[in-house]
Amino acid sequence: MNVMSPIKHELISASRVNGTKVYNTAGEHLGHIDDVMLHKTSGKIAYAIMSFGGFLNIGEKFHPLPWATLSYNTDKGGYVIPMTKAQLEGAPSYERAKVTGDDSEWRESVYNYYGVPFYWL
Amino acid sequence: MNVMSPIKHELISASRVNGTKVYNTAGEHLGHIDDVMLHKTSGKIAYAIMSFGGFLNIGEKFHPLPWATLSYNTDKGGYVIPMTKAQLEGAPSYERAKVTGDDSEWRESVYNYYGVPFYWL
Repeated sequence: MNVMSPIKHELISASRVNGTKVYNTAGEHLGHIDDVMLHKTSGKIAYAIMSFGGFLNIGEKFHPLPWATLSYNTDKGGYVIPMTKAQLEGAPSYERAKVTGDDSEWRESVYNYYGVPFYWL
Repeated sequence: MNVMSPIKHELISASRVNGTKVYNTAGEHLGHIDDVMLHKTSGKIAYAIMSFGGFLNIGEKFHPLPWATLSYNTDKGGYVIPMTKAQLEGAPSYERAKVTGDDSEWRESVYNYYGVPFYWL
């Protein structure tokens, strides 16, 4: 390995992902990663759940984001997703119990919304 | 869906996995899941890290376990892996910094040890 090559960080721990802030490309703060949902049988990440708004869990919204939609920005120290705040208002979001529970009824619409390959195939 | 069919829980949150106890098939407590390592580009779980022993992080051992080695046992309320304590002593384990860092030098030996398909292919 070339000594000048940057250190590769191919892995990240779930506990470090949780709590990480999420911004859009305009630099606006959209929320933070509340948790990562794992698909038991495939060992794949189903979603990162972004939480935003609300106070003491009242009015808080939870957006399931396919992992592929997130890119980490080292300058910002957070993830960046290419969505305006207005777009985010129209993106799929659910209450906490639903977004951390059975996703079989809504996963396809979420993945189609973001246009990324299904995690379950 | 048949009303008598059990509720399917295909997903689990990373924060619920972390802290879950690990037993062997003889019912012996081996440790607990300390964290889950995620592979950024593929969106796959690289390892669950099992921690056992030690006190205040001194003498603690960290075993990277491929996700497929873990099965959840509802009676025990924890994961079960088919390893005796003696086998665990001989299984790959690393210090915390190594097991949460770059795995390119040791991942193949870990996956070969457990005989499960590589997560990175």
